[in-house]
Amino acid sequence: MASINMLSIITKKKFGEELTDEEIRYFVEAAATGSAPDYQLAALLMAIRLNGMTPRETTSLTLAMTRSGDVADLSSIPGIKVDKHSTGGVGDTTTLILAPLVAACGVPVAKMSGRGLGHTGGTLDKLESIPGMSVSVSEEDFLRQVREIGIAVIGQTGQLAPADKTLYALRDVTGTVDSLPLIAGSIMSKKLAAGSDAIVLDVKTGSGAIMQTLEGSIALARTMVDIGKLAGKPVEAVVTGMEQPLGTHIGNALEVKEAIDVLSGRTQGDLLEVSLLLGAHMLVLAGKAASIEEGEDKLREALSTGRGLEKLREMIRAQGGDPRVADDLSLLPKAAVIRDVPVGKAGIIQKMDTTALGLAAQAMGAGRVRKTDPIDYAAGYVLRVRIGDKVGPEDVLCTLHASTEAIADQAEQAIRDAIVIGEEPVKRPPLWYAVVTQQGTKMHDEV
Amino acid sequence: MASINMLSIITKKKFGEELTDEEIRYFVEAAATGSAPDYQLAALLMAIRLNGMTPRETTSLTLAMTRSGDVADLSSIPGIKVDKHSTGGVGDTTTLILAPLVAACGVPVAKMSGRGLGHTGGTLDKLESIPGMSVSVSEEDFLRQVREIGIAVIGQTGQLAPADKTLYALRDVTGTVDSLPLIAGSIMSKKLAAGSDAIVLDVKTGSGAIMQTLEGSIALARTMVDIGKLAGKPVEAVVTGMEQPLGTHIGNALEVKEAIDVLSGRTQGDLLEVSLLLGAHMLVLAGKAASIEEGEDKLREALSTGRGLEKLREMIRAQGGDPRVADDLSLLPKAAVIRDVPVGKAGIIQKMDTTALGLAAQAMGAGRVRKTDPIDYAAGYVLRVRIGDKVGPEDVLCTLHASTEAIADQAEQAIRDAIVIGEEPVKRPPLWYAVVTQQGTKMHDEV
Repeated sequence: MASINMLSIITKKKFGEELTDEEIRYFVEAAATGSAPDYQLAALLMAIRLNGMTPRETTSLTLAMTRSGDVADLSSIPGIKVDKHSTGGVGDTTTLILAPLVAACGVPVAKMSGRGLGHTGGTLDKLESIPGMSVSVSEEDFLRQVREIGIAVIGQTGQLAPADKTLYALRDVTGTVDSLPLIAGSIMSKKLAAGSDAIVLDVKTGSGAIMQTLEGSIALARTMVDIGKLAGKPVEAVVTGMEQPLGTHIGNALEVKEAIDVLSGRTQGDLLEVSLLLGAHMLVLAGKAASIEEGEDKLREALSTGRGLEKLREMIRAQGGDPRVADDLSLLPKAAVIRDVPVGKAGIIQKMDTTALGLAAQAMGAGRVRKTDPIDYAAGYVLRVRIGDKVGPEDVLCTLHASTEAIADQAEQAIRDAIVIGEEPVKRPPLWYAVVTQQGTKMHDEV
Repeated sequence: MASINMLSIITKKKFGEELTDEEIRYFVEAAATGSAPDYQLAALLMAIRLNGMTPRETTSLTLAMTRSGDVADLSSIPGIKVDKHSTGGVGDTTTLILAPLVAACGVPVAKMSGRGLGHTGGTLDKLESIPGMSVSVSEEDFLRQVREIGIAVIGQTGQLAPADKTLYALRDVTGTVDSLPLIAGSIMSKKLAAGSDAIVLDVKTGSGAIMQTLEGSIALARTMVDIGKLAGKPVEAVVTGMEQPLGTHIGNALEVKEAIDVLSGRTQGDLLEVSLLLGAHMLVLAGKAASIEEGEDKLREALSTGRGLEKLREMIRAQGGDPRVADDLSLLPKAAVIRDVPVGKAGIIQKMDTTALGLAAQAMGAGRVRKTDPIDYAAGYVLRVRIGDKVGPEDVLCTLHASTEAIADQAEQAIRDAIVIGEEPVKRPPLWYAVVTQQGTKMHDEV
């Protein structure tokens, strides 16, 4: 047999052939250890992007990436640990809402989250906008915290999937982010390494999602659920809409504020509904609810009794933050410039370029262009319109929170450019499109 | 308009879109100056390999690569200078035969050649096997030599197409060598930079060629001829067979010996015939012959009168080599181990894996695995059979020239593995398949 090397692997994939498990392990190991030059990995990533991978290859890739680093051991935490992951959205703060609610229902939440990059925000950045809050917690403290109060949301402990770290960084600069097997492998390798017993995936679809078509989003969901099956872990995916920001608040401190508003019962709407839907799937996988409906009922009860907000307070306190933010939003960072932007004309909100809306917040300092960029926690905006809304010229389009007037001016233009206002009546897009489980795919009736 | 950067160019080509001249100039400039990281160039090369380039893009690429460095100025040499380039073959020593013959017919040959890499040999390495012979000549000396004796074959002077140098090195290690636009651009950018007035291309086809199918080889020939047309230079291509080594000798000193045997009139056969065909095209483009037939007649006369061999002697002398090799082959490097390998069974030679035959010589030391590897000038072998030959067990398959018995043993096995002997009568493959000119493609009657 010919010996395996990077060039033979690239050549095989270039011709559209299926790689063996051994070949996949070889290049994943090479990515993890740095033994292969970046240019060979880049050529292979482009060949994978253009020629695809079979389900067997994708699972093999995922497992090899999982095994390239540490795998968290959550066995010291009693109960069934259910993780949740979103493929990334704008105004997408479900973790800050569902994690406390799910924990309040008695399901331990031991969650490692990520940072924002590109047009989507990251839970860690949002949490760090809370004064004093730390997301760098040792594995020991992490496990103890979950055992004691049932919830922790922190950054990675140990080295989870280092091969993915290398490959992800390369994909970002070589135009190979939008590859279904590479996305699925990246997400699932980290989720499997994070050590939970079951996983609920929130796969976004629409103008702000990594997969902008429903077909592509369902295919991604199916791929990841199937990887879970082969890895022996229950995984369910909900395909949810990202035709517009999920919440109304975009920006780190602003999204914390919105999550607290929701947990306090002051705010309803799409963000709450999607959080309840995903949380209910978590309760079902944890065996705490027999159906999605029962799960949602339990979560609503945790919300109305204030047990969810109390869980958030406990978590903030345990991680060094000031728990009074849950009751006094003025403790959150505040922008120097806060101003309303009027719609300026009459019409109906037709559609939004949600990626552009995310990039507008990034440009205000709410996100990073480079991994090392600092974050302006107060920066962002509150979007006052949703698709299908009938608006007049004097209505408020958004409220900007910026560090300078010039930044606010730029953001205003970018947000205006991203929102199409027309004459036609428009139906509100559904909150979710499909549920993908190991048993099959269930489409939403409204779709 | 969005600003151009490597990521936007990669993304466009990933989606199969046509790049603008400006975008092509941008990445060629980035390759020449090193301003783009290798991994981005590698991803782009793979996207080009898999999604192709239009004729307009290919020409734009070629011209940008030509302009990335120096362009030789041959105007001080009187007459029409015609260059010749082969896409690379095994036992393919046409330059050493046709250059002296063409020069003997009064057409100045100012040729810059390359080194061997992979399974194919390079003219410069062959010339350097002649004791004292130098191929590193200043531009001034090069021009003077051609003016004085009408012939010089040397390595590149100046920096010809530095962008191609970077891209070629990357293609070699990223599995993107076999891309028609990249091959055409690489060859033609260097040939246009070499400054001749017209170009004859020898495009190989078959098991030892860069394009192994006739269709692919004709497409490559057509692409390069069309680039010549757009660049305003007469270019003609002959698609010749590489189903088996062209000459019988494979290895550097061995190929010099065969060229001298041919120029001395001692050896006829395929190598001579293809050399005459290509040389005749050169005479026609130089205006020294009205037809290919007339060109071949003139070249045969230069051969039979010994004027060709005399031109070779003059060139060797001018470049510091020992011209007596033309009359005394024992002055060439000689291997320690020289031995005949018997066929071992009776049958008819069905086909050959010519790439494997080239790699067998490379493994003996006749070629390089890495660019910095030294060459064993004496190493190689003489192949004693051709496709269609009826052979008996005692007949000689090949004569090995190796530095050790162990290397000879390995080569024997590799050569045996590359040659299929069977029962069926086999027709000799034709020497050439098609002539591609700016007027059209003429197929060989025999095909």
